[in-house]
Amino acid sequence: MATPASLYERHRDHLGAALDACATRRQWSPFRESPSSKIHGEEKPAEGKARFDALLGKPFELDQPGTIGRTGHEISPYTQKPLGIDYPKSDPGALFAAAKTATRSWSRLTPEERAGICFEIAFAMEEQAFANAHATMHTAGQAYLMAFSGSGPNALDRGIEALAYAYKALKDVPGQAQWEKNFGRGGDVRLNKTYRTRGRGVAVVVCCATFPMWNAYPAIFANLMTGNPAIVKPHPNGILPVAMAVKRMRDVLTETGLDPNMVLMAADTREAPVTIDLLKHPDCAIIDYTGSQRFGRWIEENCADRLVYTETAGCNGVVIDGFRDTGGAIAGLANGLCGFSAQMCTSPQNLHIPEAGISGPDGDLSFDEVATQLVEAIRSRGSNPKVAAGLCAAIQAEESLRHIERVREAVTRAGGRIWLDSHPYDYPDFPDARTATPLVVEVPAEAIDLYGEEVFAPVCFLIREPDRDTALERAAHLAATRGAISSYLYSADPDFIDRAQDAFTDAGASLWINMDGRMPINFAAAYSDYHVTGLNPAGNACLADLAFVANRFRIVQFREPVPAGDAA
Amino acid sequence: MATPASLYERHRDHLGAALDACATRRQWSPFRESPSSKIHGEEKPAEGKARFDALLGKPFELDQPGTIGRTGHEISPYTQKPLGIDYPKSDPGALFAAAKTATRSWSRLTPEERAGICFEIAFAMEEQAFANAHATMHTAGQAYLMAFSGSGPNALDRGIEALAYAYKALKDVPGQAQWEKNFGRGGDVRLNKTYRTRGRGVAVVVCCATFPMWNAYPAIFANLMTGNPAIVKPHPNGILPVAMAVKRMRDVLTETGLDPNMVLMAADTREAPVTIDLLKHPDCAIIDYTGSQRFGRWIEENCADRLVYTETAGCNGVVIDGFRDTGGAIAGLANGLCGFSAQMCTSPQNLHIPEAGISGPDGDLSFDEVATQLVEAIRSRGSNPKVAAGLCAAIQAEESLRHIERVREAVTRAGGRIWLDSHPYDYPDFPDARTATPLVVEVPAEAIDLYGEEVFAPVCFLIREPDRDTALERAAHLAATRGAISSYLYSADPDFIDRAQDAFTDAGASLWINMDGRMPINFAAAYSDYHVTGLNPAGNACLADLAFVANRFRIVQFREPVPAGDAA
Repeated sequence: MATPASLYERHRDHLGAALDACATRRQWSPFRESPSSKIHGEEKPAEGKARFDALLGKPFELDQPGTIGRTGHEISPYTQKPLGIDYPKSDPGALFAAAKTATRSWSRLTPEERAGICFEIAFAMEEQAFANAHATMHTAGQAYLMAFSGSGPNALDRGIEALAYAYKALKDVPGQAQWEKNFGRGGDVRLNKTYRTRGRGVAVVVCCATFPMWNAYPAIFANLMTGNPAIVKPHPNGILPVAMAVKRMRDVLTETGLDPNMVLMAADTREAPVTIDLLKHPDCAIIDYTGSQRFGRWIEENCADRLVYTETAGCNGVVIDGFRDTGGAIAGLANGLCGFSAQMCTSPQNLHIPEAGISGPDGDLSFDEVATQLVEAIRSRGSNPKVAAGLCAAIQAEESLRHIERVREAVTRAGGRIWLDSHPYDYPDFPDARTATPLVVEVPAEAIDLYGEEVFAPVCFLIREPDRDTALERAAHLAATRGAISSYLYSADPDFIDRAQDAFTDAGASLWINMDGRMPINFAAAYSDYHVTGLNPAGNACLADLAFVANRFRIVQFREPVPAGDAA
Repeated sequence: MATPASLYERHRDHLGAALDACATRRQWSPFRESPSSKIHGEEKPAEGKARFDALLGKPFELDQPGTIGRTGHEISPYTQKPLGIDYPKSDPGALFAAAKTATRSWSRLTPEERAGICFEIAFAMEEQAFANAHATMHTAGQAYLMAFSGSGPNALDRGIEALAYAYKALKDVPGQAQWEKNFGRGGDVRLNKTYRTRGRGVAVVVCCATFPMWNAYPAIFANLMTGNPAIVKPHPNGILPVAMAVKRMRDVLTETGLDPNMVLMAADTREAPVTIDLLKHPDCAIIDYTGSQRFGRWIEENCADRLVYTETAGCNGVVIDGFRDTGGAIAGLANGLCGFSAQMCTSPQNLHIPEAGISGPDGDLSFDEVATQLVEAIRSRGSNPKVAAGLCAAIQAEESLRHIERVREAVTRAGGRIWLDSHPYDYPDFPDARTATPLVVEVPAEAIDLYGEEVFAPVCFLIREPDRDTALERAAHLAATRGAISSYLYSADPDFIDRAQDAFTDAGASLWINMDGRMPINFAAAYSDYHVTGLNPAGNACLADLAFVANRFRIVQFREPVPAGDAA
């Protein structure tokens, strides 16, 4: 049996490389990002699909304490039919009790041993990435490629990043010290001091529907590293990816001779939710939440006696002053607006465009020219089902279609204009998939009620601004007051870029500048991009930094004099 | 004029040494701890006294914005007469506005420049230590030696410690990075990334009556380093030491060409308190609080939408299983129980002693023998006015005398016994000083209502415990549920010591073992002792660790592609 210490030896080079990546913020990953059969061979992808298929239509076996029945009712966005899987329904009290018991032996592990186990878990998750990709597709609605990386390698990288920060924070506390000081008549006094780190208690990790694992791994690893067990609460329509991960995590713990109850799952349904019972449980010490801004704020206000880490949402703005590369910018924006049907916390939503137009490398572009080029780029993506399938994927929740309807109806009343209407498109492999191409609308700047919060749907607002300074000011103000996770700027004017950086610094929001179509403009790179500033309403925590981990544990100390006769 | 950069050069070796001390947790200080004229000469102490005398009986001049009148009414515990000094009464809104304005230029300083300025401030505070010692004596009631080190060198060391941790956390964020990744058809994409740290906003630093500067310096330096201005709120009877410090801090800022409003003071009186107005002000982002557990808990519960750091109080227990050196242990305990009349957050209060007695190096000691030896040691200290003056000093608040009366009356009703009564003693230099020698009472273990919270007065409870395990269990339980900052154990049994360490780890409380009379048993050493665990009701924060600083700032990021043709 692998011991925690041997797992550390197995993964110590990875840990060193992760720490280095966090410090240099260069690209690094120990995982293979692409599911391509050119890399993995034909067998693994097929086996992953088969593993997923074998889970459908039957009870999911997860052996954990406190089971008091069965729960779960997930609908696939691709088939709009139930997955037919049920999961253990758990008694919260029994989960907390089991987690607390598991903590006792876990807390005796060194940071190195914990890191070894967490890395081992991470690679077990990578091994599961093909199967989990299908589970993520059929709950979140992501396309296959994104589901593979977004519940696999990319998410695991964020997890390892949190692991590395936790390791760094733990290692900042020495195990022992010898202290000596002269106290006048007391003479030289020598004290042996020992320091123990100790977790805060049980963490509840609340996952979101569209990226079930992306925030879950960082939260789970941050908690395990700092000595805290995690009860993972999946979204009612995103249980399967979490259940598969939790089951495998528990296996790894058991295989290492440890109590598997350091990781538990609490599934529920939309009709019989269990989240608040978990968050309000007296033994809940830490909350890691990903989801809507509304519920995030509720948690921040109502669970403030716990340690609360939230990543929610905002209305991400795009300030357009000018293009250095019109085609690249338009392609980047079109991809960003279409990508996973804008169901990402980093998706752009509000394009602030001066009504007098913008500068371009080959002369100025009018507001309408910008709109036209963008609309054409989106139209061409949405009208090709194969392109749309890979880019837009499916719509996770029926509610998003209602958001499209609501905006479509409201925009005319608000004095705006529909530039491109949304329509379902025919998903090649899944004729019943819930799909929608982006709705692109022009609105006057005053219509802030329409665009001043996240519209969780493929909806893009072209906001007619009096000038670029007003555009910048409004976008920064919205980021500060309504929240933003990724904001965007297109400008060829270095002075304006400087001013924009200052304005967004003051707004407490990060800014991506002149991103073009060579990469997804909203890609968030582990070890490199600080995800969420914590300075605006889109969340209070960052994935990942020292603040994300340093308060999850505390230090208990002992000291004792060295008897006068003892040697130093 | 010294620039921030030149101040960093002046103090960079000190910063390096402070970082090293935090890592090794060895004894270190750049300050002279003793006020002895053998070190400083005769002139400096006399000049300090003269500076203090010159402040008495007149308005204190502190040039800061928002002054709307005068306030302040301090009584000296040594003369029981008013100091006759008044201070600016400030409009909270104007203070917050001025602080926010000052932040703009301050936030452009590098961590090195901030460290340089904070060190310069710290040495200016050391220069003020003689004068401030008298101000601390005549507000807090401390003895001269303690007032010198406790508002001077020892407190400044805790401040530098916080500065070092903040520097470390800030430097964990690189200023920039170049990131490169292959995106398949997009090819290699290179991004220039820049990272800016940004403070959370205005901090309100609430100081306590008995140690006006000890927690203030760490909070002020932690905030300044991380980009946050501090509005310092002194205790109504502890304004002068704070006012002197704030005035000098503002001078240093001005002398360095900076906006002095990074540090402001908001004084008040007990009759017209301003604390809650400050804490509830919409621009208050951070609260650093030192004081009673009751108000600390109120802040934690009612200001949870701010970042709250508290250090409050608990009922510090002493578990006595056996002495390795009876005389040393008794001397250490007697000094600890007498020291500053037990008005320290680290003072021992509850002695849990097995009723069958304890082990000693020369045979067993009965409960009564332990009590008798301790009482004799305390009596001898209290009956010698010169010794008592240096050790017990004065009683800060009249209320403490009422606590003594209350316990004296209650103990007989509770079936207990008075072993040593409290009495005023004649302070050599100050015939009107408010003084009280320790009250030592024996109580049955059931009388938890009497000893189960901090009694802020020189009162010591001898708790008759059925056996050592029960003694340990009760002391640990009280630490966990009622709070403890320092707990103590006397034992010659390594197994029992191990068990006690585990019990106190579970209780989330630190434990000082077999401390003898060669040093104050409750001395908290900067850079070495983690002060407050944050795991029990005696406070939620530690002075100082990464958690004390890492969340006081956040990271804003910019990224921009390197144009395809540019060289790496």
